[in-house]
Amino acid sequence: MRLDFPPKNTERIGAVSIHELQKIYEIDSGKLPGANGQQSIKGFGYDELSSIMRELAIVIPVKNEKLGLLEGALSGIPNECLVIIVSNSERAPFDRFSMEVEMIKQFSRFADKKIMVINQKDKGLGPIFSKLNYTSILDSKGRVRNGKAEGMIIGMLLAKMQLKKYVGFIDGDNYFPGAVNEYVKIFAAGFGMASTPYCNIRISWKSKPKIVNNQLQFPRWGRISEYSNKYLNDLISNITGSKSEIVTTGNAGEHALSMALAENLNYSTGYSVEPYELIDILEKFGGLLPSDLAGIIKKGVEIFQIETRNPHLHEEKGKDHLTGMLQDSLLAINNSKICNMELTRVIKDHLLMLQVKSKNKDTISKDNNKKHAIMEPIKSISIETFAEMLLNNCKSLNMM
Amino acid sequence: MRLDFPPKNTERIGAVSIHELQKIYEIDSGKLPGANGQQSIKGFGYDELSSIMRELAIVIPVKNEKLGLLEGALSGIPNECLVIIVSNSERAPFDRFSMEVEMIKQFSRFADKKIMVINQKDKGLGPIFSKLNYTSILDSKGRVRNGKAEGMIIGMLLAKMQLKKYVGFIDGDNYFPGAVNEYVKIFAAGFGMASTPYCNIRISWKSKPKIVNNQLQFPRWGRISEYSNKYLNDLISNITGSKSEIVTTGNAGEHALSMALAENLNYSTGYSVEPYELIDILEKFGGLLPSDLAGIIKKGVEIFQIETRNPHLHEEKGKDHLTGMLQDSLLAINNSKICNMELTRVIKDHLLMLQVKSKNKDTISKDNNKKHAIMEPIKSISIETFAEMLLNNCKSLNMM
Repeated sequence: MRLDFPPKNTERIGAVSIHELQKIYEIDSGKLPGANGQQSIKGFGYDELSSIMRELAIVIPVKNEKLGLLEGALSGIPNECLVIIVSNSERAPFDRFSMEVEMIKQFSRFADKKIMVINQKDKGLGPIFSKLNYTSILDSKGRVRNGKAEGMIIGMLLAKMQLKKYVGFIDGDNYFPGAVNEYVKIFAAGFGMASTPYCNIRISWKSKPKIVNNQLQFPRWGRISEYSNKYLNDLISNITGSKSEIVTTGNAGEHALSMALAENLNYSTGYSVEPYELIDILEKFGGLLPSDLAGIIKKGVEIFQIETRNPHLHEEKGKDHLTGMLQDSLLAINNSKICNMELTRVIKDHLLMLQVKSKNKDTISKDNNKKHAIMEPIKSISIETFAEMLLNNCKSLNMM
Repeated sequence: MRLDFPPKNTERIGAVSIHELQKIYEIDSGKLPGANGQQSIKGFGYDELSSIMRELAIVIPVKNEKLGLLEGALSGIPNECLVIIVSNSERAPFDRFSMEVEMIKQFSRFADKKIMVINQKDKGLGPIFSKLNYTSILDSKGRVRNGKAEGMIIGMLLAKMQLKKYVGFIDGDNYFPGAVNEYVKIFAAGFGMASTPYCNIRISWKSKPKIVNNQLQFPRWGRISEYSNKYLNDLISNITGSKSEIVTTGNAGEHALSMALAENLNYSTGYSVEPYELIDILEKFGGLLPSDLAGIIKKGVEIFQIETRNPHLHEEKGKDHLTGMLQDSLLAINNSKICNMELTRVIKDHLLMLQVKSKNKDTISKDNNKKHAIMEPIKSISIETFAEMLLNNCKSLNMM
């Protein structure tokens, strides 16, 4: 993989470096990229990526995805990564989770791939988190809540159990295994570029094809990303005092974290998880609020944003959830302590407009002051104890 | 890359082995696939594929493709392959060829990639072929004809000039660079599986998405492939005496040949090039007609058919050329000396129906007995002489 490096521009906010979007020149640079005389481009040979991928776990949060699409995604993940599937798929009337486990077992045998699968609603999980005092992931009945972020947390813990240094998140409904393959290599290249152990790789899609009048169009951003990026940039502009357009990955569904950073972050439930990740990094390490993480602040946090070569073509889930997604993203920005009054006014107006316009009242919350449930950093959890309890109590856990 | 091996079924016709479609389990098997206890699956590690790719030239025949799509295809081709672009793009009123050369030069510099570009209508080319007595590629005025096969021939000669052992063909209008990357790795895996120096790798797409009522559908085959495959299988069934469904890649636009085989084949102009490749192999090495290629017959010819994991999403060129394409494919089968009378009757009826139904009379030929121009094997050309003349006389040649 060959891409822009060093990044052409970087916003520095306290200990956080947000790098400008980097472009990929070549998905596969072979074994010996060497120096190509281009001071502004770096090539990663397969061996270098491979050694990073061996320390990388790919977490796929799943919820009733088509089996064929999930199998396709698996076929695109390089063999050297550990795959962790956290499934919140239904168990009745059809036991979709069991169907997934059967497919994954078969796939794992054929592809000789290490895969872990667990059901997010496994009855063993709630009591484990409860005993370990990690209650921010639980609902009022002491069970793990529904939600992508909750699945991600379980995935991160499984990755930490397996001593993985890096964790990346990929959706299971991608039509192009080749695009999934690129995401993973982007994660590896990102970690390879980092000069600190604390880093976040965020992927920007080249385009997101959509069908308009029976023709395929290739717009760059969806509407939600457009607004999320705008408001995140407004927030950053306000901090630095000069107009910034650095953020292009506010809603990056494909992103990765070094475990050293991941275990120190809070996570927001619902659709706000991706923009909140960025906000949480700024809140903790941006020098704007008091912090007890001096060790990380000393070494710095790097955020890489990398543009894929592949378009992103995934299963259409309909338009209804888009408004909810936008609302969640706006709330995540607005609820931040570092969001200034002026931006709050603009976002509040936007939220109001969404509510007035929304015909399907169920898909968006009526409370524009809603606070998302925020989950605590997982570093509070003793991973040895978690692993032992998990192996003893979670029947849905399958390790292949 | 990990895939079915050995193939589950093989049709043997004289010296030709046509292997059943092989499925891919994993696009990227890492560095050390090793044995996975599965006797029916073979993994190719990156190092093994890499050493084959260093001997592989990828030829992209181009005709007014969008520059962005062509650049995307280039970004998907592994660095270790030589890329050869044979462009038949227009030179006036807009000099699209020059625009391509500029883009490719820039890309090649950034990606540190070896690329050769030549214009199919380069005024130097006609006289060279004429002097070398290779006139089957020329039109009545002594210029290289238009056509994909003609471009392929030039590409093969450039690959041979560079001493490449293998040559693969890929279209330049693919929307997914990740799919292009998979094609090339399939070629490499195919050559890695071959037990003879004479082999042909043919790619079958997992699906070919199309838009129906503003929704994306993923049918496996297009209509042309459906009929080409059917008639090719009928032809084979008639030879072997038992019903065969072995051929699934009659119109494989993505295919590769070992140079040892490529230089011995004839090539058919127009849209018939891909099915004709298969027919020519059967005519020459199937034991049905006399042959003067005893050396190849002794070692055997292998045809691998491999199914991608990625769907094939390329630029829509409209429906008009589809009928012409089907007509050309049917003619290629029907004109073969090994096509039996019964099959000829069925195909003739089909051709007649196409003609009656075709509203746009220009897109299909009125002559159902039309013979395609057939080009001679390139082994008759002294490659040293060709190379010398090319370097001295073809101004459109760019080597980067």
